[in-house]
Amino acid sequence: MRVLGIDPGLTRCGLGVVEGGLGRPPRLVAVGVARTAAELPPARRLVQIEAALEEWIIEYRPEKVAVERVFAQHNVQTVVGTAQAAGVAMLVAARKGLPVELHTPSEVKAAITGSGRADKKQVGQMVTRILQLDAAPKPADAADALALAICHIWRGGAASRYAEAAAAGPGTNGYAQAVAEARRRQNPLSRTDRGVQ
Amino acid sequence: MRVLGIDPGLTRCGLGVVEGGLGRPPRLVAVGVARTAAELPPARRLVQIEAALEEWIIEYRPEKVAVERVFAQHNVQTVVGTAQAAGVAMLVAARKGLPVELHTPSEVKAAITGSGRADKKQVGQMVTRILQLDAAPKPADAADALALAICHIWRGGAASRYAEAAAAGPGTNGYAQAVAEARRRQNPLSRTDRGVQ
Repeated sequence: MRVLGIDPGLTRCGLGVVEGGLGRPPRLVAVGVARTAAELPPARRLVQIEAALEEWIIEYRPEKVAVERVFAQHNVQTVVGTAQAAGVAMLVAARKGLPVELHTPSEVKAAITGSGRADKKQVGQMVTRILQLDAAPKPADAADALALAICHIWRGGAASRYAEAAAAGPGTNGYAQAVAEARRRQNPLSRTDRGVQ
Repeated sequence: MRVLGIDPGLTRCGLGVVEGGLGRPPRLVAVGVARTAAELPPARRLVQIEAALEEWIIEYRPEKVAVERVFAQHNVQTVVGTAQAAGVAMLVAARKGLPVELHTPSEVKAAITGSGRADKKQVGQMVTRILQLDAAPKPADAADALALAICHIWRGGAASRYAEAAAAGPGTNGYAQAVAEARRRQNPLSRTDRGVQ
């Protein structure tokens, strides 16, 4: 499964493509940031973001898109611009027929670091370890986009295993194993990297 | 000048096209609402809003687009969806090369009714009078979209007259007249319809 993670923003839109699946460590495909100039009219900035996202989807052919869910409560100064950029990201992906999932910042942090309240540095460090990179991707928006994509792969894996198990039913062969595997995969790092933080 | 006013929203996106210019009363060209189903994923709703806006722009060929400015402070429950719909509206217009202007709700109310704190009913009544309609357009989102378009025509006219006057300079012929005309046009109803409210 190849996932494009998008950390939306008008000034910096983090973009990260990660490939992964059951039994394989996630692999970095591409990472970057789409920037737009603050002095441009907002409508033109959205057109530039749309163009950048179109390019990434054409070049890297993700099968799914994960976008950070925007909350009105966070950052009142920037929430409208962030929501607009997120809206354009969702639009571009859905228009291409790609499934779009939204993940909250705390879901992403929990999936990546084991704690929903991890800071940006911890997320960057864990993304670096998980993808076996030499250094943390910069800026933080780029690392966050990769974290979103990894979160989506792991949670997506867990969700589909749950779905399989539920479809098979509790009396059937492999049900308990599927549930245990799904639960384990929801937060694999808490098992393999305990004590890292 | 033909203006498309857009009152953005995920559930109901108000759309109104008005034609007007110096010395001519504004005229209704088209009014309607683009609706999307709450049970659809948000990304698909944005795709439907994009398609509706594309259709309106192709069919009614506005020269300018006026979108209601979204504030984080208003309506925390819906601000993210509203901002996303506004972002898609701005994107579609800018992509077509149309100038996009944002107007705050109180700017629109002040331009239409003379008071920045008018309620929806007062706005609907004044839109009905200004465009010489038989009844107020329904739902309120449709009336608000027309109010945005009218506000844009009047403010745009005033702004360009100001700009002309400023370019000509205070010593030149017609300066005082241009400024007076521009000031008058910023709120024409306070002059012609005094006492209506």
